[in-house]
Amino acid sequence: MKTGVLDQFVEIVGERHALRTATDIASYVEDARGRFGGSCSLVLRPSCVEEVSRIMALATKTKTPIIPQGGNTGLVGGGLPLRGGSSDEVILSLGRMNRIIQVDEDTNTITVEAGVILENIQNTADDIDRLFPLSLGAQGTCQIGGNISTNAGGTGVLAYGNTRDLVMGLEVVLPSGEILNGLSKLRKDNTGYDLKNLFVGSEGTLGIVTKAVLKLFPKPRGREVGFVALNSPEKALQLLNQAKAKAGNGLTAFELMADMAMQFTLKHTEGARAPIQGDHSWYALVEISSGKSSEDAQSTLESILEEAFEADLIADATIAATLEQQNAFWKLREDMSGAQKPEGASIKHDIAVPVGEVPNFIALADKAVLKIVPKARIVNFGHMGDGNLHYNISQPVGWSAEDFFAQEAQIHQAVYKIVKKLNGSISAEHGIGQLKREELLTVKDPVTMELMRSIKQTLDPLGILNPSKVLK
Amino acid sequence: MKTGVLDQFVEIVGERHALRTATDIASYVEDARGRFGGSCSLVLRPSCVEEVSRIMALATKTKTPIIPQGGNTGLVGGGLPLRGGSSDEVILSLGRMNRIIQVDEDTNTITVEAGVILENIQNTADDIDRLFPLSLGAQGTCQIGGNISTNAGGTGVLAYGNTRDLVMGLEVVLPSGEILNGLSKLRKDNTGYDLKNLFVGSEGTLGIVTKAVLKLFPKPRGREVGFVALNSPEKALQLLNQAKAKAGNGLTAFELMADMAMQFTLKHTEGARAPIQGDHSWYALVEISSGKSSEDAQSTLESILEEAFEADLIADATIAATLEQQNAFWKLREDMSGAQKPEGASIKHDIAVPVGEVPNFIALADKAVLKIVPKARIVNFGHMGDGNLHYNISQPVGWSAEDFFAQEAQIHQAVYKIVKKLNGSISAEHGIGQLKREELLTVKDPVTMELMRSIKQTLDPLGILNPSKVLK
Repeated sequence: MKTGVLDQFVEIVGERHALRTATDIASYVEDARGRFGGSCSLVLRPSCVEEVSRIMALATKTKTPIIPQGGNTGLVGGGLPLRGGSSDEVILSLGRMNRIIQVDEDTNTITVEAGVILENIQNTADDIDRLFPLSLGAQGTCQIGGNISTNAGGTGVLAYGNTRDLVMGLEVVLPSGEILNGLSKLRKDNTGYDLKNLFVGSEGTLGIVTKAVLKLFPKPRGREVGFVALNSPEKALQLLNQAKAKAGNGLTAFELMADMAMQFTLKHTEGARAPIQGDHSWYALVEISSGKSSEDAQSTLESILEEAFEADLIADATIAATLEQQNAFWKLREDMSGAQKPEGASIKHDIAVPVGEVPNFIALADKAVLKIVPKARIVNFGHMGDGNLHYNISQPVGWSAEDFFAQEAQIHQAVYKIVKKLNGSISAEHGIGQLKREELLTVKDPVTMELMRSIKQTLDPLGILNPSKVLK
Repeated sequence: MKTGVLDQFVEIVGERHALRTATDIASYVEDARGRFGGSCSLVLRPSCVEEVSRIMALATKTKTPIIPQGGNTGLVGGGLPLRGGSSDEVILSLGRMNRIIQVDEDTNTITVEAGVILENIQNTADDIDRLFPLSLGAQGTCQIGGNISTNAGGTGVLAYGNTRDLVMGLEVVLPSGEILNGLSKLRKDNTGYDLKNLFVGSEGTLGIVTKAVLKLFPKPRGREVGFVALNSPEKALQLLNQAKAKAGNGLTAFELMADMAMQFTLKHTEGARAPIQGDHSWYALVEISSGKSSEDAQSTLESILEEAFEADLIADATIAATLEQQNAFWKLREDMSGAQKPEGASIKHDIAVPVGEVPNFIALADKAVLKIVPKARIVNFGHMGDGNLHYNISQPVGWSAEDFFAQEAQIHQAVYKIVKKLNGSISAEHGIGQLKREELLTVKDPVTMELMRSIKQTLDPLGILNPSKVLK
């Protein structure tokens, strides 16, 4: 980048908030796991939407590529430069724009800047006896702007929807520098095209989210967590539908876990104890919330489980007796990803299929994977209520990681072929970023790809906003 | 239109399904109330997506304007030719594409063609013990394709969302004739831009919805309806928030009604009886549903009302004792629009404001309207839970309709000014169509309008799809 141009960018945010040395920019150009990252000459940390607007106007004038970045916790490299890519890219970090602008108890909304840490929004909601239901592993670090740009999922989706469903309005800076003011608090508004949803989930390739109005919900008065053992995914599906029928949106989680996932967690997580004794092939965590009381949540959960016993859907079940036990049940599920590490190399998938196809997917995918690597250990767990499985494969005992990863492309291909056959998604939660651009071409039809390209071209004709992400 | 071109269009659907005589096309070129309509030379009634695709390909080739039409029940002329407009426009009626393609009990979805009557979808869901919650006055006539294209609202929005929230996937024919296959049943899918929401609510100006995958819900096991009298909209707002906190998504309706609206209905609707005696300025209908039982719904409703009495939020209340009484309570609310007719001319608004601003809106709008026409009778009722009011004004007693309508522009202007001030919507449910194109320009900022125009230009570069609707 020409020094003159660089100076103009620096001037917008001020010298202190323009990072240029390798040390200063180190944490912005790579992810924590070191999977993605490249070089860049400048990190800008604007303080307000006007500065973001001026940065984009200058970027347009000088054709400078800009990479918007939130908390840098993404899993597909969507907010990072490409390894070996041009070092002319500028990272625009939203972290300083971290004000909670307004909490509206009457309308049940919270208005925030893009750089607010997710956990701060949860806590602010909690302070006024409300719930902001977006909840995920990175919540202490990730920023709401990134959550919105990636349409983050997490554990609250079953009852409250994806991030998309929690966003009422957005302020967005367009590649031209123009500011789109859509900070609406309306539950109904049929005045023209839905622009909001175009930006949610577009991974910073169409515009930069700078502010958002988010929905708040009444905080449940009671919450009960059950842990059940089941013989098959088919029975889990029946249980899910019965629980939905009884509890409606009071069913706030339905997580499926294969025995292998449970074994790894019990083995590798300190203090982890099996909630249910005996050998079982599948487990599910069922959470019921109530706006009325714990007793109400408990009676709903009990009636679901009783009916399930009578219908022979579950082999065994237990209800957490204390808050500590509830947390312990949840921790088993949350530790499953980490518990794979000591078992060696792992090939991961973040897939979704229609909820009713989950049993079918498992049967087909297990067969396909074991055909490629007969001793592979399938560590399958996830948000069954949303049809979303973290379908991970740990290496066979005694193999080298190298030998196992040599099968990665073939395993991905086999799994994605089944996903495609079942009209599923190769990225349910994590997005496309730089990781899955190639694979996207293999699962989307040409008309869809072409329309996506046209929209990108319309909003970002110079291709300066987060280039080479999502679309190649 | 040249005869050769016309013949080619006719050939696609077959002579029987191409209407050309004035008698045959009469019901397609005007709405039932005779408010909108113009001339057109041809109505095409295709039987399948391939025919729609061929029609659009030919329309592109010959630059023929096409107006997609569903059940022709819209209130803003979105599916009709402009009065005095070109008679070269062709109406494409989706009514023959009325197959229910698949009901998936496991995934809780129903897949339908665009021409299916809404009520048929409700009934099909009911047959398998599920609920399709979209519900509105025209449900016996309107078609789901129209509901999707207009993002229809209705009485189910509070708990289940607008039509947008009920659509999982769409098949859309683009102006070019290309078919976009997005018939997804996925609850999670982060693979690229959200194209679906671009078509929902775009009133047939960006593409023609030909099929849809819709969400089904468990059918509530119990439903209770309460009718309450209140002294102010402020108290109604507090009651709404308390009811939400207690019932969550079990609060399936919260309808506000001004005394004037109630008086008109009691006077003009045969058999209508006041649920509550005495003079009160405001009423609300509160509906609670339960996935468990009637008893559960009743206990929730009772506890909401008891708490409201104690907090002095409500002046009086009654719970419907029978199904007949529930229906009678609902009928009072549903008859309010019709009950205005015998009272003379009426100036109507379909506005939304942030839920917390409803009391503020009412105070400001009442004052502004009465300043213009001091004896105007404000007939205010609507979906308070969504911030959506049908804020209608009946003429003063003794005035001529003509004199009253002479004030229409000024009244609209005054009301929309307040709506804009409160960041509200001038069309919460009904859309823009041909009716509110001018007003749209006064409430949307230029950046938004420009982006909408760019998207229209990208998807429909020749401007052949539903011209002069939404955007001028």
